Amino acid sequence: MPTDAKPTLLIALGGNALIRKGQAGTIEEQFANLAVPAGQIARLSRTHRIIITHGNGPQVGNLLLQQECCDAVPRLPLEILVAQTQGQIGYMIESTLDSALMDLGIHFKQHFITVITYVVVAEDDPAFQRPTKPIGPVLPEAQARQAPYPTMATPKGFRRVVASPRPVSVVEKREIRTLVDMGFIVICCGGGGIPVKREGRRFQGVDAVIDKDLVSAKLALEVGVDQLVIATDVEGACLHYGTPDQRLLGDLSALEAERLLAEGHFPAGSMGPKMEAAIHFVQKGGPRALITSLEQIEAAVAGRAGTRIARETGP
Amino acid sequence: MPTDAKPTLLIALGGNALIRKGQAGTIEEQFANLAVPAGQIARLSRTHRIIITHGNGPQVGNLLLQQECCDAVPRLPLEILVAQTQGQIGYMIESTLDSALMDLGIHFKQHFITVITYVVVAEDDPAFQRPTKPIGPVLPEAQARQAPYPTMATPKGFRRVVASPRPVSVVEKREIRTLVDMGFIVICCGGGGIPVKREGRRFQGVDAVIDKDLVSAKLALEVGVDQLVIATDVEGACLHYGTPDQRLLGDLSALEAERLLAEGHFPAGSMGPKMEAAIHFVQKGGPRALITSLEQIEAAVAGRAGTRIARETGP
Repeated sequence: MPTDAKPTLLIALGGNALIRKGQAGTIEEQFANLAVPAGQIARLSRTHRIIITHGNGPQVGNLLLQQECCDAVPRLPLEILVAQTQGQIGYMIESTLDSALMDLGIHFKQHFITVITYVVVAEDDPAFQRPTKPIGPVLPEAQARQAPYPTMATPKGFRRVVASPRPVSVVEKREIRTLVDMGFIVICCGGGGIPVKREGRRFQGVDAVIDKDLVSAKLALEVGVDQLVIATDVEGACLHYGTPDQRLLGDLSALEAERLLAEGHFPAGSMGPKMEAAIHFVQKGGPRALITSLEQIEAAVAGRAGTRIARETGP
Repeated sequence: MPTDAKPTLLIALGGNALIRKGQAGTIEEQFANLAVPAGQIARLSRTHRIIITHGNGPQVGNLLLQQECCDAVPRLPLEILVAQTQGQIGYMIESTLDSALMDLGIHFKQHFITVITYVVVAEDDPAFQRPTKPIGPVLPEAQARQAPYPTMATPKGFRRVVASPRPVSVVEKREIRTLVDMGFIVICCGGGGIPVKREGRRFQGVDAVIDKDLVSAKLALEVGVDQLVIATDVEGACLHYGTPDQRLLGDLSALEAERLLAEGHFPAGSMGPKMEAAIHFVQKGGPRALITSLEQIEAAVAGRAGTRIARETGP
């Protein structure tokens, strides 16, 4: 049980927390980028319990590309590569957070831990019939056509595609709740979690990628957090995004958000799943979901930035 | 504080827990090999609290080799690769342990967690002046001579070498003790831990590899375990190893072990560091250290196999 009354935040860090558009993704760039959310999270940890989730798209893509390049090493299945990125990014977030906590002089009070996380998916999820999630490098067309896995033409070129099934449950949810109650900042569900299916009474890894925002909403409900914060590369959800009529949405009820989503205001590959995750959290009983930029996490939590979705919108 | 009186074991798994001599190291081989210690650890968890540490030599070597092959991806420093293998191997151990616990029907009672672990080393450790630990692939001589890092001629050919400094302290020792006291099986210090040095008040990753057995002894002392179990590919420490006079050592006092080590009975690259770790643990107050094969972990804990080192040897 919690020993104090701090509310809990689940902060889902988008891929741009590590690699920004146009960057090659050197390790120096990734550490510098992480300092932006880490500083805010360190300050928020004084008044909130905190869970951090994160994406892994470019990192797992790089591991896949390296595997393709190198015949001398036995290839590893996707689920193992996701586990590798959970270790890698968990370490990088911990390391950056450590510095940020030191800057505040609260390093010795605040501990953190990375939890290698599996997420159960349903074997009969329709996503397995129609893989849609591009991963890894762009392939020459000839290679794509001969690849031992499904590929797809994307705007960038041919890429491998995998299924993106819905998260059913986070296997480590009790451990995560226990660690949060003990006061740890918990880093988990990296890259959407390692996807597993139940095989009899065992778990078996599957070749798939789970949406990081959907799994964050699921975990937020399973452990009972007060606010789900989806931090990305735009200020929030917009109407008429990318047109002269673009308008940032502020406070929004889940019902309104659902209507706008149904009307197609939020693109499928980007804001759509974030909005879907935010609505799911609130519809299932979560108090509030925020969609905000990485720079404005603190301001959004304070109600001064981002798109804020609640059952009913307050004044 | 512990809620029951179970003694604590720290089990250090050698590289052969994952990849056996002569194997290519496919993922199927690694999972099958892990089942050998996992079954025993699952049974031991009924009567002991358990910490697991593990090596990562072949896994980090493969990641280095893949980096060498692939110019399209920015290279990551060694410490990040170690973090990747902690995620990878942590997941593989958890997954195998999960199955073993299910076989015993105690899966819902026994939880486990992987801790991404850093280990502090001293900046002025003499090892940094003389790198001796070969890592990664064999390089063509011409490439080795032009490499931007130190290389060394080994019996297999030229290889990259890094420093192997002594572990000063495991950064997450309090977290590990807390989790063990809560009843978690804790997997940590993978690959000897991510080596960091203190830079002012911060930690900074360094290009080095810490000996997995030495760090296991350090952690065993820091968290106060009852037995340190070093599991490897031989039955225990031997006199006259590899000769017709070979004789397995059973019960041994730390003093006797120290004398035999000084006399050169245990080769530097293999049994030497294991014996050194075992002696260190016992000399500094640890009750008992075991060196045993992966197949005989349970028998060694029961006092029926392996080399068993204590302050004073019993009857």
